[in-house]
Amino acid sequence: MAQDMTLHWSSGSPPCWRVLIALEEKNLKGYNQKLLSMEKGEHKGKETLDINPRGQVPAFKHGNNVVNESIAACLYLESQFKSSGNKLIPDSAQEQALTYQRALEALNLQQRLADLAQYTMRVPEAERHDSAVKRNREALAAELQIWEGYLQKGGPYLAGKNFSMADVVFFPLIAIILRFGLSQEKHPSLTRYYNQVKDRPSVKATWPPHWVNNPPGMDMLKDL
Amino acid sequence: MAQDMTLHWSSGSPPCWRVLIALEEKNLKGYNQKLLSMEKGEHKGKETLDINPRGQVPAFKHGNNVVNESIAACLYLESQFKSSGNKLIPDSAQEQALTYQRALEALNLQQRLADLAQYTMRVPEAERHDSAVKRNREALAAELQIWEGYLQKGGPYLAGKNFSMADVVFFPLIAIILRFGLSQEKHPSLTRYYNQVKDRPSVKATWPPHWVNNPPGMDMLKDL
Repeated sequence: MAQDMTLHWSSGSPPCWRVLIALEEKNLKGYNQKLLSMEKGEHKGKETLDINPRGQVPAFKHGNNVVNESIAACLYLESQFKSSGNKLIPDSAQEQALTYQRALEALNLQQRLADLAQYTMRVPEAERHDSAVKRNREALAAELQIWEGYLQKGGPYLAGKNFSMADVVFFPLIAIILRFGLSQEKHPSLTRYYNQVKDRPSVKATWPPHWVNNPPGMDMLKDL
Repeated sequence: MAQDMTLHWSSGSPPCWRVLIALEEKNLKGYNQKLLSMEKGEHKGKETLDINPRGQVPAFKHGNNVVNESIAACLYLESQFKSSGNKLIPDSAQEQALTYQRALEALNLQQRLADLAQYTMRVPEAERHDSAVKRNREALAAELQIWEGYLQKGGPYLAGKNFSMADVVFFPLIAIILRFGLSQEKHPSLTRYYNQVKDRPSVKATWPPHWVNNPPGMDMLKDL
């Protein structure tokens, strides 16, 4: 059915996971896929660069149409396959507003997570400061409180009673943050949300393969 | 016509400018608006916080529907007012793919610009390094070359022959970068693009008021 699609992805990458979930939700099966090892630098290989010249995953192609930015790919799939699978962007103005808002707002959380997780990769050793790490941790903690508040007041999903594009974008982030050891006690609404969404068929079917037999055991974020 | 809309904005902010352009393109006139001074901290006032609890602009409301993230607000306006004004997301799969891709990909340029422009605001003096500023400048220069290449090969607009959502998102960024003194000689395609889009009615009508009688005279980016 989706043999004219190709996805290059890596296990556990939130942007890749979004596209995998969107494909499942839209009931698009049988696409060509290539699971790449970032550690081995496979995302810098010619075949991936041909789709995504930035040498990043996801690298996604439908026919000759390339859409590599994860949110762009999800919006494209929803728009091109409106009547297939589950509707990810509701029609009603109220729900639609909240869906777009939370889907794009999730990039704040993504940036805070990247600032912290990629600090040692992005900043040369001679420039690193413990005070910067502390500030990045505090910024991530504050951002998480905003989302804890949203789910405490609203829910069960981010844009209300139905799973939507907002959850497609957000869930992979909170999944990885909990895997890094975020305190469940201090984030009861995020934890409830995580436990509910993780059993959704599209999410189970796309669970990062290297997570399956490899429990977290990481406590990098436990005091957040 | 759009009396049920409220926009709080500040002059020259790329995210705010996007929403202003989208409202013009969709022919939505007569909305309530409030031009805020960031220098005076007016975006932290109660009236703005009531719409956007992050204390950021744009703060946008349509009836009771709040959509503050700039790209989210633009997508919402396009979706809710499909048949009004100009179409910002083309129907054809090929053009639509490129529109979504470039609109979201522009956030890379936004981040590189923010990393450089906000370095002294975000990083305490004791942690600042000239080497980090140099790296941020190089990252912005490399990102700009990517966009120069897109417009050299394609165009005249970012997603092809028609103005689209990709331009709504991208133009305010290149406008501010050129205002900061980016070399036009080294970026002929970006300059041609800028000169073409700046005269578009929606862009002229929303030109940052504090830019009108205040020519750039800034050369922060001239050697990029």
